[in-house]
Amino acid sequence: MLTLYYATGTCALASHITLEDAGADYTAVGVSFKDKQQQSADYLKINPKGRVPALVTNEGILTETPAVLAFIAQSFPESAVAMPSSVYEWGKIQAFNSYLCATVHVAHAHRLRGYRWADDPAAIAAMKAKVPQSVGDAFTLIEDEMLVGPWVMGERYSVCDPYLFTLAQWLEGDGIDICRFPKVKLHSDSMSTRPSVIAALAQEHS
Amino acid sequence: MLTLYYATGTCALASHITLEDAGADYTAVGVSFKDKQQQSADYLKINPKGRVPALVTNEGILTETPAVLAFIAQSFPESAVAMPSSVYEWGKIQAFNSYLCATVHVAHAHRLRGYRWADDPAAIAAMKAKVPQSVGDAFTLIEDEMLVGPWVMGERYSVCDPYLFTLAQWLEGDGIDICRFPKVKLHSDSMSTRPSVIAALAQEHS
Repeated sequence: MLTLYYATGTCALASHITLEDAGADYTAVGVSFKDKQQQSADYLKINPKGRVPALVTNEGILTETPAVLAFIAQSFPESAVAMPSSVYEWGKIQAFNSYLCATVHVAHAHRLRGYRWADDPAAIAAMKAKVPQSVGDAFTLIEDEMLVGPWVMGERYSVCDPYLFTLAQWLEGDGIDICRFPKVKLHSDSMSTRPSVIAALAQEHS
Repeated sequence: MLTLYYATGTCALASHITLEDAGADYTAVGVSFKDKQQQSADYLKINPKGRVPALVTNEGILTETPAVLAFIAQSFPESAVAMPSSVYEWGKIQAFNSYLCATVHVAHAHRLRGYRWADDPAAIAAMKAKVPQSVGDAFTLIEDEMLVGPWVMGERYSVCDPYLFTLAQWLEGDGIDICRFPKVKLHSDSMSTRPSVIAALAQEHS
């Protein structure tokens, strides 16, 4: 039995979709960022970083999207998101997810969480102003160099797909028209019709 | 045969040490950031992101430190950095490396690469000013919550160790006294005497 702690509108959606894709037996528990629950003493016992996702497993708690996705992929070897047998192919999956985590998500975070990296309000505003460019550049690289199609890694669906879908949902709020990236748009449209995506979104917005 | 593209003083050192720990047959090729070689047409064919590390394998090229480290761990199952058999333990390793990649390295990057996230020189200066706090906070969390000791995951050495060692080398330049973090300091001191670390550093500074 697994328990996923998530907050609506966050990157935890990637783990949520992946649990659905895996056919996992899990419970999803919402953490209200509006009420700052992620900073509560109870939640900090689950994740001292005060962030989501956190996945409670029988052995302990895992955090960080790429790690949670890798754990699910390895734990459900018969599922749609199973780890491939090729060490190299798995490396490509991990590389893509690292890029989403450390470059794409980070670029996006400068819009609403600039206070992590500067105190001056003018600096925080300057960071916010650059988000359309930095996130746009990252998605240009995804469109031109990374997304094989129809899925991120080609014909085979993987844990890259829920993660890309999740971050692509943020483009509009970042002031970027997804139509600039036809392959990303097609990918997002395909994902939107998947039962796993529909189920995870329904739970998060219920 | 593997080829590692690295630049001196970068996070590629983690991959370099790990190749040594694995006993891999590899060649290390320096990329001069001073001469902007990472933006040359030739290098962009290797890594369109214009960054290091990049690991050329028989099957293709891998980038992103957590992915390169995971690939080496899985490719050398008899070595000191082998992937553990427990999926959960492996998840913990991946979570730690994701934190280094997406939070610690990113916080540090605001000192010298603030132009990635803002254009205004005053904003870039404001980011630089906050680095001692943001990197210090991240290392406090590592010290208090993550680093088990003597190695990151406890008694067993893993691919977390070369990566933590690499980022800890940057503390001094970030204006942070490593002595604030006694476990991190002990870890760095232990790493400094490892033949793999000595060999990788000797190659990068030869």
